[in-house]
Amino acid sequence: MVDILHKVGVRTDSPQSVYEALTTIDGLSSWWTNETDGDGDQGGVVRFRFGDKGGFDMEVLEAVPAKRVRWRVADGPEEWIDTTVTFDLEQDGDHTKVLFAHRDWREPVEFMHHCSTKWASYLLSLKALVETGAGAPAPNDVKIDSWD
Amino acid sequence: MVDILHKVGVRTDSPQSVYEALTTIDGLSSWWTNETDGDGDQGGVVRFRFGDKGGFDMEVLEAVPAKRVRWRVADGPEEWIDTTVTFDLEQDGDHTKVLFAHRDWREPVEFMHHCSTKWASYLLSLKALVETGAGAPAPNDVKIDSWD
Repeated sequence: MVDILHKVGVRTDSPQSVYEALTTIDGLSSWWTNETDGDGDQGGVVRFRFGDKGGFDMEVLEAVPAKRVRWRVADGPEEWIDTTVTFDLEQDGDHTKVLFAHRDWREPVEFMHHCSTKWASYLLSLKALVETGAGAPAPNDVKIDSWD
Repeated sequence: MVDILHKVGVRTDSPQSVYEALTTIDGLSSWWTNETDGDGDQGGVVRFRFGDKGGFDMEVLEAVPAKRVRWRVADGPEEWIDTTVTFDLEQDGDHTKVLFAHRDWREPVEFMHHCSTKWASYLLSLKALVETGAGAPAPNDVKIDSWD
């Protein structure tokens, strides 16, 4: 099992705005992908789509205000099924610290390398959204390679 | 042991420019940090510094033109000592594919999360350097959190 790990610090005085960006459809569609619908609360399912590239259905395992959001990948590319995505939030002075983990990849395949770099760019989009009001969700996301 | 993995695709017709950006002082100082000196050829040591935040001395274990660059961390933060950093290059149509690995972290500490996100932003700086002539090396790098 191998994991993708990242960290960003979002300049804001409480974790509330980051938490909302991780649990509301308006928030999620403003930093990850414009094509987002469903229910981001605990027990819900959120559907993320990326045009003709497909997407992911996330079951919300945990949504603890100001603390933690954890998803299980219920549908999507075979490599992602049953992996988990966790955002742990903690206030650290004038930043909300976001510790991110996409855990339990079965093999460190090339697609995992790609997803690791994409996650970093999307987390910087989340940071920009909360700090400035504008993220860079797909299809206007940062392009990293020939897979997009 | 845990690893940081990333991938970028650099739009260019051969791996030569990416290889030069990974092995020459002019190249390295144009995407990672302005404060770079030493010898980037196999058997050399390159010193990377980041102002008052310190830096890394990398022993060049492999430098195989158009294929692979591999460093061992000879000096730097305790967590980095004896970890290895590998860039594997492969031409894929109109992109040079860069598979990146920073291997053999002893623990998935918060600093590893930070470094994973920073590596992604520096690899996008490498991509921009080769594609446009301008990267974003430190101190003008992308700021990701309160650690910078």
